[in-house]
Amino acid sequence: MNLDADIALALRLADAAGEAIRPHFRTGVDSERKGDASPVTIADRNAEEAMRRILKAEVPQDTVIGEEFGSTPGTSGRSWVLDPIDGTCSFLVGRPIFGTLIALVVEGWPVLGIIDQPILGERWIGATGRPTTFNGQPVRTRLCRELSDATLATTGPQYFDDHEGQHFMSLAAKTDHKRMVMGGDCYNYGLLASGHLDLVCEAGLKLHDWAALVPVVEGAGGTMCDWNGDPLHAGSTGHVIALGDPARLEDVVEAMACHH
Amino acid sequence: MNLDADIALALRLADAAGEAIRPHFRTGVDSERKGDASPVTIADRNAEEAMRRILKAEVPQDTVIGEEFGSTPGTSGRSWVLDPIDGTCSFLVGRPIFGTLIALVVEGWPVLGIIDQPILGERWIGATGRPTTFNGQPVRTRLCRELSDATLATTGPQYFDDHEGQHFMSLAAKTDHKRMVMGGDCYNYGLLASGHLDLVCEAGLKLHDWAALVPVVEGAGGTMCDWNGDPLHAGSTGHVIALGDPARLEDVVEAMACHH
Repeated sequence: MNLDADIALALRLADAAGEAIRPHFRTGVDSERKGDASPVTIADRNAEEAMRRILKAEVPQDTVIGEEFGSTPGTSGRSWVLDPIDGTCSFLVGRPIFGTLIALVVEGWPVLGIIDQPILGERWIGATGRPTTFNGQPVRTRLCRELSDATLATTGPQYFDDHEGQHFMSLAAKTDHKRMVMGGDCYNYGLLASGHLDLVCEAGLKLHDWAALVPVVEGAGGTMCDWNGDPLHAGSTGHVIALGDPARLEDVVEAMACHH
Repeated sequence: MNLDADIALALRLADAAGEAIRPHFRTGVDSERKGDASPVTIADRNAEEAMRRILKAEVPQDTVIGEEFGSTPGTSGRSWVLDPIDGTCSFLVGRPIFGTLIALVVEGWPVLGIIDQPILGERWIGATGRPTTFNGQPVRTRLCRELSDATLATTGPQYFDDHEGQHFMSLAAKTDHKRMVMGGDCYNYGLLASGHLDLVCEAGLKLHDWAALVPVVEGAGGTMCDWNGDPLHAGSTGHVIALGDPARLEDVVEAMACHH
């Protein structure tokens, strides 16, 4: 496996997605409903198609798993996992903090990830064994001496069921909750990698929502895991924690283990 | 009163605030705690000082009310109401969707408002009797035929007490809640003025949080009011609704009037 070649290919995917997305931002594009009523836009579909065209031409032996068009099986044991617009609601209301997520997953484990914000021209790149970069510059997560100092982010409480919400609130109460921020989707994980916040906690994430985030966060010195503190793999439940300072992992898992 | 001159002065204030804020974005500036534990940064103070210097030189007869340094009384019956960084938590985590808010309030009613995003170079300007502009171009709110089609935004449920939260949830349930977005502070109101979302509902806002928003939203065709549907004035309780399509006002007020 040639990681440099894979990174170069992932960058081409991100460029192609951005080109497909930018013309539709803040233009009031029509959106339609999927069966589950999550919003989907022309930009979303165009971007995934653009990425799939490149992958089909360059690595036809690899599996492609996309948020919009499902899975195209391959034979190599390698999977490109694509979410053309993570944060569709942000996109729809005109906030430039959604992102294109591109991951390479090998035997169920993400080894390469990109978070790309095509409106602002911001790009985080993470790959196993390499320092995460933001627009070409290495970034690091920040230290967090006490959980009570931690700035926590989550996209919104509407994505938790009642039980999950109780665990989240149990965690939030032990952080610097006056500084908690809502909204943000994948952008929160990029900001965590760059050392601007300490902790993200979410539920209901699918593989395409989190696979790209793991190499970005871990290559910056952070850690990602499920709500029990176990590593994320393709079969995980979608309960995701990202933590800038791995030394606080035990505190986080303990804080979440409320018993109502 | 010369509205053109007031607008020109307000633009100078926004420019000065932006110059003071930009150097501190994403630099990990030290922040300190106020008594109420809300975060405040060097950028916040520098920006308000820069605006106050200009006002003191240009309109010493006007009152100045600032989020950071309180009230400096004047004699003219006119008040400049300043919030150098609305969305301090967004600023602290590196999200470029906070804003500088500048309002001119005459006899308790806002007649001029600016929402300025100094990192992205985005500026909404609203003034009584004039169309709201975004970066110099007129903008309009969008129609919303049914409340169930409305995209709702709020900065976060952590800013509601239990009782307020019940009213908010009652409203949210009647909107297109799958598209609800959290986070955003003043930026949500700019996006509403530009027709990208339909409804914002918040509690606990102070005069400096909402005064600038009213001319922006109303000059774009929307309406702002308190949770009873009454107009906002300097003595309002801080329960704020912004609505892009005023035809839905009755529906919104009815939806909020839950009785638990």
